[in-house]
Amino acid sequence: MSLAMLINGQPSQQIPADDRGFQYGDGLFETALLVKGRVRFIDDHCQRLFTGCARLGIAPPDRATLLREIAQVTAGADRGVLKIIVTRGSGGRGYRPSGAMSSNRVVALHPFNQSPHGALRLRWCDIRLGRNARLAGIKHLNRLEQVLAQSEWREGEADEGLMLDTEGEVVCATSANVFVVREGALITPDLRFNGVQGVMRAQVIKAAAKLKLAVSEEPLWPHDLETASEVFLTNAVRGIRSVASLDVLQWSETSVATRLATALSLSD
Amino acid sequence: MSLAMLINGQPSQQIPADDRGFQYGDGLFETALLVKGRVRFIDDHCQRLFTGCARLGIAPPDRATLLREIAQVTAGADRGVLKIIVTRGSGGRGYRPSGAMSSNRVVALHPFNQSPHGALRLRWCDIRLGRNARLAGIKHLNRLEQVLAQSEWREGEADEGLMLDTEGEVVCATSANVFVVREGALITPDLRFNGVQGVMRAQVIKAAAKLKLAVSEEPLWPHDLETASEVFLTNAVRGIRSVASLDVLQWSETSVATRLATALSLSD
Repeated sequence: MSLAMLINGQPSQQIPADDRGFQYGDGLFETALLVKGRVRFIDDHCQRLFTGCARLGIAPPDRATLLREIAQVTAGADRGVLKIIVTRGSGGRGYRPSGAMSSNRVVALHPFNQSPHGALRLRWCDIRLGRNARLAGIKHLNRLEQVLAQSEWREGEADEGLMLDTEGEVVCATSANVFVVREGALITPDLRFNGVQGVMRAQVIKAAAKLKLAVSEEPLWPHDLETASEVFLTNAVRGIRSVASLDVLQWSETSVATRLATALSLSD
Repeated sequence: MSLAMLINGQPSQQIPADDRGFQYGDGLFETALLVKGRVRFIDDHCQRLFTGCARLGIAPPDRATLLREIAQVTAGADRGVLKIIVTRGSGGRGYRPSGAMSSNRVVALHPFNQSPHGALRLRWCDIRLGRNARLAGIKHLNRLEQVLAQSEWREGEADEGLMLDTEGEVVCATSANVFVVREGALITPDLRFNGVQGVMRAQVIKAAAKLKLAVSEEPLWPHDLETASEVFLTNAVRGIRSVASLDVLQWSETSVATRLATALSLSD
């Protein structure tokens, strides 16, 4: 249930059934946190959305129009989750996109549901992520792998699941990026074949540099979890969350995550 | 533009924006040919749809209701393309599907556009298909790879594109299955990691057995195209189509495709 929704600028809860987002997942989305009436990291979210449009050849929305619609759906709200969806548009015969389509956009505010406090209990997901460098990093609408991954456990059995790709590399959690700390340095998957270049992930990388913490983006393997002194997840809405366990592995260290959250003023 | 559309049984052209097909590509579709007022291979299409629902844990539509709605949108029409979309339903927080969702269904009739006659000119697609055995074979709504593949050439430059997966296996054309003939025997990719178990593909395999033609489903490689005496594509709407060329490779042989099309009475 959304609190407010605009579709192509008009109050509506319906999209045309020939929208290519519905027909093929041919589009992109963003999920951002509204805090004290302001959308956190709005520039980063817009940037990723526009990068995704460029990658998929989707006509980007006009930035000023988009920002005006965001202001409209968030007006008067203090806290919430902003969701933006941009699809290639309506119609077109089969998979082939017609060149001159104007994209459809949905701008909606949803209630913010506080997730449980404390460090997270993770599990390994059985389902593997396919590889496709052309789709890697962007937040596109083809999310069946994540839907099936989250179906693997019942609510309460775990807080999140870590996902491997078909070659066995660690990519991400089902809806968060992952960082491990080893000898004081941060490592996060490079996301060259899959995963989403998270807005909070980028903020953490920048903040770490300011704190003189080494960060590397590189292939990550299950072994790197076994040798990590600290593990945390990042997500634009839920911030930085320390990890307490991953199946039988356990961590009590949370100091790097705490320093980064403080540096990014995420406690609001 | 559809000629007639029912959404959950009601005449409509709009779906709710919180539909999970729109939000995540969390659903399935079927595209079938209406010939002389009858949906060709309707049982096969329904069977694949129900198999897909079972695989994804989506509540299947009631079969009698679905068939009644198909009869309703095709009533009075002689020829056309029937498209069915079934999604997991509306709402649910994030990727996690709630257990008790009732699926949404769209049943629509579209005009049939005759594709050019004659043997097809194919090209290799640059984009590779990711691997995911959990999604292989079913006709799910995560189709960005196919959309990007069809964006690789302008209309008229080629008729179809053949797709490799990340390991270099030949999987399919962007919207058709592929068969090669070698020493009189048929080979088609086994689709264990990706691709769609086409309705026409299954009919061809059955018809070949009746004609005493050997058929094997196995990994197919670019080399198998180079050594093929005949190549054809299959698709539920467009039938069996002989291939004349694939980049520099050329074929003039069409006899196996012709025998199969005759056996399946596809000339209507």
